[in-house]
Amino acid sequence: MTQTSSVTPAPFIFDVQAREVRARAGVFHTPHGDIPTPVFAPVGTQATVKAVTPAQLNELGVDLILSNTYHLYLRPGDELVAKLGGLHRFMNWDRPILTDSGGFQVFSLTGIRKIDEDGVTFKSHIDGSMHRFTPEKSIAVQENLGADIIMAFDECAMPHDREYSQRAMVRTHAWAERCLHAKARSDQALFGIVQGGVFPDLRKQSAEFITSLGLPGYAIGGLSVGETKADMHAALEVVDGILPEDKPRYLMGVGTPEDLVNGVLRGIDIFDCVLPTRLARHNAVMTRSMGRLNLVNAVYAEDPQPIDGACTCYTCQHYARGYLRHLIIAKEMLAATLLSIHNIHTLVQLAGDMRQAILEERFCAFAADCLVNSKQGSK
Amino acid sequence: MTQTSSVTPAPFIFDVQAREVRARAGVFHTPHGDIPTPVFAPVGTQATVKAVTPAQLNELGVDLILSNTYHLYLRPGDELVAKLGGLHRFMNWDRPILTDSGGFQVFSLTGIRKIDEDGVTFKSHIDGSMHRFTPEKSIAVQENLGADIIMAFDECAMPHDREYSQRAMVRTHAWAERCLHAKARSDQALFGIVQGGVFPDLRKQSAEFITSLGLPGYAIGGLSVGETKADMHAALEVVDGILPEDKPRYLMGVGTPEDLVNGVLRGIDIFDCVLPTRLARHNAVMTRSMGRLNLVNAVYAEDPQPIDGACTCYTCQHYARGYLRHLIIAKEMLAATLLSIHNIHTLVQLAGDMRQAILEERFCAFAADCLVNSKQGSK
Repeated sequence: MTQTSSVTPAPFIFDVQAREVRARAGVFHTPHGDIPTPVFAPVGTQATVKAVTPAQLNELGVDLILSNTYHLYLRPGDELVAKLGGLHRFMNWDRPILTDSGGFQVFSLTGIRKIDEDGVTFKSHIDGSMHRFTPEKSIAVQENLGADIIMAFDECAMPHDREYSQRAMVRTHAWAERCLHAKARSDQALFGIVQGGVFPDLRKQSAEFITSLGLPGYAIGGLSVGETKADMHAALEVVDGILPEDKPRYLMGVGTPEDLVNGVLRGIDIFDCVLPTRLARHNAVMTRSMGRLNLVNAVYAEDPQPIDGACTCYTCQHYARGYLRHLIIAKEMLAATLLSIHNIHTLVQLAGDMRQAILEERFCAFAADCLVNSKQGSK
Repeated sequence: MTQTSSVTPAPFIFDVQAREVRARAGVFHTPHGDIPTPVFAPVGTQATVKAVTPAQLNELGVDLILSNTYHLYLRPGDELVAKLGGLHRFMNWDRPILTDSGGFQVFSLTGIRKIDEDGVTFKSHIDGSMHRFTPEKSIAVQENLGADIIMAFDECAMPHDREYSQRAMVRTHAWAERCLHAKARSDQALFGIVQGGVFPDLRKQSAEFITSLGLPGYAIGGLSVGETKADMHAALEVVDGILPEDKPRYLMGVGTPEDLVNGVLRGIDIFDCVLPTRLARHNAVMTRSMGRLNLVNAVYAEDPQPIDGACTCYTCQHYARGYLRHLIIAKEMLAATLLSIHNIHTLVQLAGDMRQAILEERFCAFAADCLVNSKQGSK
């Protein structure tokens, strides 16, 4: 079993090592090790990054993973996870973990959830049983899970509905304060979440309130939920001036290679997304210079080339597209594993390359190259 | 890509290093490396051991894998595999491979196949298209695939039908001669297959004929297909006296930990079976001292123990039964991977432990212990 008991709680300090325009290279210290930033975190919804072992994640250089409070609360239950040693030991991942608050999933249960000022009552998508999340409950569940970074319970509104965005923002602020009061463990960093939809004045107001709480890190929520890229970038630019320079900034649920570059250009340090593993299960791979390929396409049947000749992942080092397509057509589970490895590598490597470019003061050129390449690739 | 082109063809010599009663410890030399025996080969039906990467197979100490000619002929096609560099390169496994002849699968297609003296006409289980296998075709397909060990095209009869067993045996003999004549590649070892059902006189006759062909190895087919253990053991004992001592002996499609021990006790060197990976996909694990466990059982929900406290596999070193059960209930692919790793390890390790015991002249005691333990475990 993984040893976690002897780890000394770290103070969640964020060391910024280099800056270039708004981009930053830093290190966030956690009880389960340092997270060099910019960083991309693959998602392990149900205490497993789908189809990939922790040993493979280690080989991929993954420094942080995200797991979902809503899913683990329902199944197997946060108390069971606590009984079996907490999430790190349960899933055999002894490096940093971030859990979301459950808010995003609960608010997505349109039609089977009811919001009030105190919290949300909802129906389980698994068995229809009734449950209730409040800020206090979300923190209690996240304390049972034991991630290094935990998130305040927030309400993610439809991004273009101003009235709702404002109401949800006000509630998110009140709930963030309650989360801070409810928090009991000292070995977890509580991050606050900025909401406000696509409305710059609301985003500004939200960033000002949330940063006033003096938390060890801040997230930007309610993006990558249907708004335009321009709206996303505008929201990032508004909050960039308000979020403190010495705290990590986390853009939730993002994204694609281009999104990562655009985020770092606007001061973001941490990203997470289900995209690499979800695409893999739909036979699609992301590349930095050719855009997205779907390997089920018959054109790849006899193709001896790797997915991406420039890629250094296990899959690209060892397998032809023709073989990967065969696995897909034959419905072999190994397809999801090999494609997930490639897709995770693409984003983890991109984050690492951006970090290196910032440290070497050549990030602007690097970012420009990436964005030009990705445009050409998606043509 | 894996380098296979520079490998010098080896002469398929079998060095017997130690014997104890009828058990042997040896090494079979192949173009893709040595196979220490006794050996257990996991099955990669469609050019992948289901849910496990070649890197994981290497970590498990797997020395040989089996792949299925029938399946690869139909999909993706043996010519495509040849075009993409042969099976080793195609599936990224640069250690020894054995392909079966396709016979077993074709004869299992009851109702959609027609046998004549020249071969078998059959309907694809995938798209209903018509195909024909002859001994010559089976060898041509296996030469396209390029395994180190290839098998003669044989007919596996119902083991208790004497008349059919005899007819199938005679046909198997004629076909073995045709396979030998058809074979053109010198870097593949053709193994003959002894048939004859549960009838000692037929088994004897078959072993005598097949060994008269002077092949580099011999298989015992038509077992583990519904006969009793006593019948299986009797068949092994009959052929044991006839098969040459200096050639490897392969018991096809076997099996369980007890079957491996019973096989080695009767002079068998090579085993293959889908059991470890198939059981894993049905949530079951094999152990050496507790029999079989099905981890979906609610009794394991909060169980902090590994599958088998005595096991040194990746899964047992890192995961509680409670976590594995969670993966199963949550329908996570990682369950199949982690359970397959454990099950393959169990049989590969058992084969290795038997080898070590034979080398140290303590195999009889070791085998007795195994058989007593497995009986107690299955109570």
